[in-house]
Amino acid sequence: MITRYAFLFLALLCFRNSTKLYTPWTHHEYFTYKNKYPPKKKRKKRKKNLKNKPGSRFRFLRPWKSAAAAGLFANSPGSSRVRVRSAMGENVDSEIIEHHVEDEEVEERRMGARGHAASSSSFLGGVAPSDRESQSGTQSSHRLLAYSDALISIIATVMILPVAHTKMENNEELRESVQLLLTTKIAVYLMTFLIVTVAWAAHIRLFQVVVRIDDCLALLNLACMMLITFLPYTFSLMAAFPENILGILLFCGCVMVMGVLQSVIVLYAFSRPFLLDEQIQISENQTFYKHHILKVIMRVPLMCFFASVFSFIFFQLSYVLLAIVIFLPYISQSLKWCRSKAIGPVQESPDSMLFYTHLPNEPLSKDRVEAFSDGVFAIVATLLILDICEDNVPDPAVVQKQFGGSLVAALRAYGPEYLAYFGSFATVGLLWFVHHSLFLHVTKTTRFMGLLNTFSLAFVGGLPLAYQLTHEFPADSCNELEAIQISCVIIFFAGIFQLTIWVVALHSEQETLHPYVRYGGREHIFMLAKLSLYPCVALVTFFLTCILSKFSAPIFHLMEITVPFAFLVLRLLVRVGLALLRLVFCPNRPEQRGAIDEAEDETRVPFNALVT
Amino acid sequence: MITRYAFLFLALLCFRNSTKLYTPWTHHEYFTYKNKYPPKKKRKKRKKNLKNKPGSRFRFLRPWKSAAAAGLFANSPGSSRVRVRSAMGENVDSEIIEHHVEDEEVEERRMGARGHAASSSSFLGGVAPSDRESQSGTQSSHRLLAYSDALISIIATVMILPVAHTKMENNEELRESVQLLLTTKIAVYLMTFLIVTVAWAAHIRLFQVVVRIDDCLALLNLACMMLITFLPYTFSLMAAFPENILGILLFCGCVMVMGVLQSVIVLYAFSRPFLLDEQIQISENQTFYKHHILKVIMRVPLMCFFASVFSFIFFQLSYVLLAIVIFLPYISQSLKWCRSKAIGPVQESPDSMLFYTHLPNEPLSKDRVEAFSDGVFAIVATLLILDICEDNVPDPAVVQKQFGGSLVAALRAYGPEYLAYFGSFATVGLLWFVHHSLFLHVTKTTRFMGLLNTFSLAFVGGLPLAYQLTHEFPADSCNELEAIQISCVIIFFAGIFQLTIWVVALHSEQETLHPYVRYGGREHIFMLAKLSLYPCVALVTFFLTCILSKFSAPIFHLMEITVPFAFLVLRLLVRVGLALLRLVFCPNRPEQRGAIDEAEDETRVPFNALVT
Repeated sequence: MITRYAFLFLALLCFRNSTKLYTPWTHHEYFTYKNKYPPKKKRKKRKKNLKNKPGSRFRFLRPWKSAAAAGLFANSPGSSRVRVRSAMGENVDSEIIEHHVEDEEVEERRMGARGHAASSSSFLGGVAPSDRESQSGTQSSHRLLAYSDALISIIATVMILPVAHTKMENNEELRESVQLLLTTKIAVYLMTFLIVTVAWAAHIRLFQVVVRIDDCLALLNLACMMLITFLPYTFSLMAAFPENILGILLFCGCVMVMGVLQSVIVLYAFSRPFLLDEQIQISENQTFYKHHILKVIMRVPLMCFFASVFSFIFFQLSYVLLAIVIFLPYISQSLKWCRSKAIGPVQESPDSMLFYTHLPNEPLSKDRVEAFSDGVFAIVATLLILDICEDNVPDPAVVQKQFGGSLVAALRAYGPEYLAYFGSFATVGLLWFVHHSLFLHVTKTTRFMGLLNTFSLAFVGGLPLAYQLTHEFPADSCNELEAIQISCVIIFFAGIFQLTIWVVALHSEQETLHPYVRYGGREHIFMLAKLSLYPCVALVTFFLTCILSKFSAPIFHLMEITVPFAFLVLRLLVRVGLALLRLVFCPNRPEQRGAIDEAEDETRVPFNALVT
Repeated sequence: MITRYAFLFLALLCFRNSTKLYTPWTHHEYFTYKNKYPPKKKRKKRKKNLKNKPGSRFRFLRPWKSAAAAGLFANSPGSSRVRVRSAMGENVDSEIIEHHVEDEEVEERRMGARGHAASSSSFLGGVAPSDRESQSGTQSSHRLLAYSDALISIIATVMILPVAHTKMENNEELRESVQLLLTTKIAVYLMTFLIVTVAWAAHIRLFQVVVRIDDCLALLNLACMMLITFLPYTFSLMAAFPENILGILLFCGCVMVMGVLQSVIVLYAFSRPFLLDEQIQISENQTFYKHHILKVIMRVPLMCFFASVFSFIFFQLSYVLLAIVIFLPYISQSLKWCRSKAIGPVQESPDSMLFYTHLPNEPLSKDRVEAFSDGVFAIVATLLILDICEDNVPDPAVVQKQFGGSLVAALRAYGPEYLAYFGSFATVGLLWFVHHSLFLHVTKTTRFMGLLNTFSLAFVGGLPLAYQLTHEFPADSCNELEAIQISCVIIFFAGIFQLTIWVVALHSEQETLHPYVRYGGREHIFMLAKLSLYPCVALVTFFLTCILSKFSAPIFHLMEITVPFAFLVLRLLVRVGLALLRLVFCPNRPEQRGAIDEAEDETRVPFNALVT
């Protein structure tokens, strides 16, 4: 049983990395490309894009230039339209130019507003100055990706519901309850979270290659989404009935159909190259890229196919296959990394690709990470209010009978639920606030940072459950103490992974961090304070509750109440702390500090006068 | 009972419009402002922003210029830092300028990527060329607003859960079931949807005034969100216990605390004017604006305060007050509109504001409408898979006992749930696809369009319930027929409100629509086809099921299956249809059409050759 779970876990890890077998473009090839296609003024910014963030998705098609030339206005029937049409054809260049300018500003405004430049929908941004074939209905992919992120974040957190809704008896020992009732469900939750994050990462990779969409691709993506939403269910079936081949068949079937759909998307996109990323568009061997991407995409479904075939014969082998599918790329990447550290960087072949490399420092689309994280935070924050709205509206008949018509008394019975909800919302909201502050200063998100973010989010998902447990048990029972300690542990890990993201980013701070939060930057200390507040408070609360277990509940509730105010006055606290530290450690430098402060005050006055 | 509901509904309508009592800026004042502060090159684009979309949120603060001047680098303790600090101070200008350029491109790239230019966080965009006081930690508000939209969209749909989870007996007449069991719950769902949308609209208005945020505002916004999430619960209490004052007190209490929080946000923002929208920043009478906005914001909480006071004395009066709060602005706006149509436009006073006007054609932030709609579509699409993942994993013991160990047989019992889920996901996904196509071509969203969008989303929320009913009843029962007809009605209304948005936009198409979908544009017909596909199909299915009630289930399932394929080949179908229409109505113009087609073919060839 445990072996199977281990295999499954390993299988999932390998699945996550199964497509990571390509090496990036050499600098030589990249600079050849740069010299061959000297960028236009606007393109220069995009070159910087490509260096730091390949596959920047914001390019538009401009079909109306070619549309005007091609007279492609044959839309409406009727004779009067012909005259209008040709008149439009004559004016259309001037109209178009005018609207083009206007629409560029609309586009910039939209870019300014939220990047949803979808209103200026059909732009054909080509590197080659010649016009491209106008494809009607080509659109920016932003809203599609936002919707996909919303859907995937809901699905990622869906398996926390069975965990949260597990009823536990008050007289049982919490420890045994956790072991007996919850372990399987928590394991299923964590593994489906990982699986869905894997599928989401594959989706990101695909849409870094396919940067524009049209109606057909939008519909194919919706079909893909439908299958992703079915993955957690098939996995929980597989986990509940590991010997029954139906679970494996359904899971592998989902993965295979998803692979087929993604291949169809790739084939469709390559048949219309203006949908692709610029690097691939200007490349001379698109067929090579197409075959590589297809090979990578179809690798996992093929292995799942064999796994499903073997499940009829010898189902343990199918689990082994799933494990291999997931494990092998990790091994190969680790070997490559070790070899590069030992021998030196390996010379890459010139035909290698910039996409689908899956090195740990490969950039991951930061706004998709933020969108997915926002979705998970929003779902988890409101998890308990969904239950309250559904279950905790008392029945009037019950109120009359049991509480003598007193609604206040009836609601007082739900007091613990309300407290659990407010505490959970506050904690998840503040963790979101820290996440938001962190990613405000992160300029480039790498894959490793994405992985750490996934771990942090997985722990965040456990928070509502923990708070529910905290408030469910009678006061001063050891169940309550254990529930409080579990909550502290979860908060600690959720916060510590966020801190780890920042530490990892600090290692390559020139690339990944805004100057303000680099070591020595003005926001460095504040960021450190924000990121370490929750882990420190959780640690302190844990040890306090170990020492003063009698007062564990008041201590925990005190922590819940003070942390929001601590965040509000964090800057003040940090400044006070720094001043105290300076006083303690550098008492002989007051004049220097005073000089700096005076300089600050002097230069500050004119600014204060500017702003009334 | 019904009177109370009517009052409540009216109260909510008035609540929705209770802050709509201001008239917009005159053109005179606007042009005076334009002449007084001639825009810089970059600003020119934003002037167009302001004309069409006031309160464009994407401006950044540039504190490091002033930070360098002010020497505000006193972050880290220790003597060695002083030297580094002053060295940084010397270099910092050049560093900053270089990074400024780079960061502008980072900013543009981020704007390109998704508008999340939060990485280049601290920009001080001032109209006045002088430097502004640098406020550390000032950020773009995009991610905060995205998170708020995600939370609010979850809360808006939360009251569909009790409706969806209502168990119904198979032998009851569906009509009576609907009347007895569901009417109240559906009414509560619709009213909470409306209330939450009202709160969301108020949130949009507030953050069109406060365009930048810092940590303190982010935390205040989170507190505001917590109260918004509590609104549906208090409303359902009020609906379940209308005579009990506790419901009214809780509801009014929530509204009052939200009003206080919003006032604190406004006061905080006005004390730091660089957080505000540009128009208010450069205006000379900021205090006037502050007082106006505060008056508008505090109006509803004050009325709710009086309503809660009266609930002790005479609770019917409190309901009347709530109704007045909501109803009065609608009346005043309608009177103004009638007067303007009869007499002519009223001369506005020069001190009137551009914000908080609430005219039906006042622009509403399009990306927030899209974000909120995406959230609702995502929640509704996955509503049934949440239940499947939680309830429909069979217990191994049950499978062994009841089905003799056959998992296939156990799952077959859940067949209707799966079918309901796939049908509901497909329909909601396709309605999202139509919504996406529509808003791709909408350049400006007005408040009236936002209202129609709300209605469409409210009906979308009812879809999972309808599909569940469809699959729940035995075949060929009249319950099933009624369920199918209810589904058709819901789909029809969801689609028809989307079509109405487009029709309304067509009335002012120069402002609100992209040229391609205006009347005579090349995408006009396709957009019309997309928007009318679902309403037409739903109508046809409804009448077919009335006529051939025996085959209602196969007809409905056939519709479910064919509509996605119809969307896939929609362009082809439309072209075929147009060709047929031309053949039928204009059979004597083949040579003109041929000429145009030839021209298209001729001009098309070179483009095809360009793209391999």
